[in-house]
Amino acid sequence: MTNALKNRQYVFAARPEDEATAGCFGQVETVLPALQPGQILCRNLWLSVDPYLRLKMHDRESYTPPLQIGEAIPGNSVAQVVTSADPAFQPGDLVAISGGWQEYAVVRAAHAKPLDPALSRPESWLGALGMTGFTAYGGLLSIGQPKAGETVVVSAAAGAVGSLVGQIARQLGCRVVGIAGGPEKCARVVADFGFDACVDYRAEGFAGALAAACPKGVDVYFENVGGKVAAAVMPLLNMFARIPVCGLISQYDGQSGTDPKALEEFMRWVLVRRLTLRGFIVYDLYQNHPEFTDTMAGWLRSGAIREEFNLHSGFDQVVPAFLGMLKGAGFGKTLVQIAEPV
Amino acid sequence: MTNALKNRQYVFAARPEDEATAGCFGQVETVLPALQPGQILCRNLWLSVDPYLRLKMHDRESYTPPLQIGEAIPGNSVAQVVTSADPAFQPGDLVAISGGWQEYAVVRAAHAKPLDPALSRPESWLGALGMTGFTAYGGLLSIGQPKAGETVVVSAAAGAVGSLVGQIARQLGCRVVGIAGGPEKCARVVADFGFDACVDYRAEGFAGALAAACPKGVDVYFENVGGKVAAAVMPLLNMFARIPVCGLISQYDGQSGTDPKALEEFMRWVLVRRLTLRGFIVYDLYQNHPEFTDTMAGWLRSGAIREEFNLHSGFDQVVPAFLGMLKGAGFGKTLVQIAEPV
Repeated sequence: MTNALKNRQYVFAARPEDEATAGCFGQVETVLPALQPGQILCRNLWLSVDPYLRLKMHDRESYTPPLQIGEAIPGNSVAQVVTSADPAFQPGDLVAISGGWQEYAVVRAAHAKPLDPALSRPESWLGALGMTGFTAYGGLLSIGQPKAGETVVVSAAAGAVGSLVGQIARQLGCRVVGIAGGPEKCARVVADFGFDACVDYRAEGFAGALAAACPKGVDVYFENVGGKVAAAVMPLLNMFARIPVCGLISQYDGQSGTDPKALEEFMRWVLVRRLTLRGFIVYDLYQNHPEFTDTMAGWLRSGAIREEFNLHSGFDQVVPAFLGMLKGAGFGKTLVQIAEPV
Repeated sequence: MTNALKNRQYVFAARPEDEATAGCFGQVETVLPALQPGQILCRNLWLSVDPYLRLKMHDRESYTPPLQIGEAIPGNSVAQVVTSADPAFQPGDLVAISGGWQEYAVVRAAHAKPLDPALSRPESWLGALGMTGFTAYGGLLSIGQPKAGETVVVSAAAGAVGSLVGQIARQLGCRVVGIAGGPEKCARVVADFGFDACVDYRAEGFAGALAAACPKGVDVYFENVGGKVAAAVMPLLNMFARIPVCGLISQYDGQSGTDPKALEEFMRWVLVRRLTLRGFIVYDLYQNHPEFTDTMAGWLRSGAIREEFNLHSGFDQVVPAFLGMLKGAGFGKTLVQIAEPV
């Protein structure tokens, strides 16, 4: 079985000095390889752009090896099977795959997840039902271990993971306080996602406003951003508070520390408040939560949890969507639709 | 029942600006109160001096409220009952109590632990069988969770807690690397406590020597000191390493941070290496380990674990013993014997 489809693909063109820019990415055209038995050819429909990619652009250790110049940009996608060399899939099937930032992808059928249209809309497999949703769910439950009545603070509360963390914590009976950038976003975090409060980290008096929103202190701080936002949460942490460290987006585009005593002060806080801090990525926690898909699909169906997409359209919009997401543009999970299902 | 014994007692005389000094302490003479039913009058024999006291000398939150000027200095002791107003104790009984830095103490019988002379020598209740030993045991097992074959690094390895942590980890089948100050101490940590290696943090090339002593990286870092010692361990930590944060003695006498990016760099490390960090004090963990006393007493009896005391003598030596211990003088657990058992 062969095919000679042309495939546009984003590659890593230049390592950023400081901020990531459009110049870090290039487009190439590849010819797709012939299908081997057990493989499927997929057309990417929706591409996910995720903060972790920024970490891979540094030439230093991250979760995974750094991107090399010329390397294809990885990422999850929802795709449609074009040609199948595996009995498990037929052309037209919708699948969730590691499709990368490209129009087509050849993947092993065993690595493709068939999507159940009855369970949710396809995009949800890149959002609440996908890596994003499990990052929120697994990190909050396994590491944050929130109990009803406790206060959970979530940074990047308008973002893909943060918006879900807060909603899940509300389902568990917690008081939920978000932190986001700008009054409009904060208002939407409360109105659309049902947080008890959301505090604008760009506003004057941020630390005081955060303290006022957490009258009983903070029991769980779901860390997505680091930097000055984290510094404002720190003094509010209650004895035995838990801090799932999911991301540090404020640090990804260059670092901004200014206080030489910050680490020592932080460690002192860990000691005297008996804090638990744990860095994680989504793969660490899957085995703990076999119930995840059913639970989350139920919450989405009942409306208990609401998913928002910051949807872009067109293959040329992938890089702008990624760069905007890093700067906190948009609301909810950033996706780029590059083709319509047929 | 009354008594009019004179009692010398150390009190907190002045808050240290930077380093703690002898001038921070004063001596007063008190008249002991009449015994109430359920109380016992004890004569302190051995006093424990512990690093946590230094934290209480700052005028800021610690585990417990800061010491107030004029307040009696607290601390554990092994004592002998002089007069008892409780049927559980007779004059002459040996007890472990929160006796404070004083010659005599009146305590509730319910708060006194009767000592079993068959189980160990009395001083061990201030060492391996007491708060010190449980800090090592509980912190290592509950938070460090070492597995056979893993590498455990212990700072302040010649100290009271550190020397026990390493020996316990050896019993569990780990490779154990200590960090201590000076070649003589390091040699003794290996010779007397059986560590696989011990690295001198004062020597040039410390970080390189530590890396060489940990060829398979570090799975558990038992943190007693913070500062530059911690900074050298950090890059060696393996994926999913655990860090029980027990103390930060390098920071207690004023803070010494110099790198404004240190906290951000550290948080990045927590994230990408998926570290778990947990601050604790001994009281947090007792319920996890009902087997502790029997296990430790067995190890002491069999010689599997060896206890060293840095023993001082005389009531006037209490403050010098404490200040020396903060500076890393001595080897093992620092005690002051202020009276002989009768």
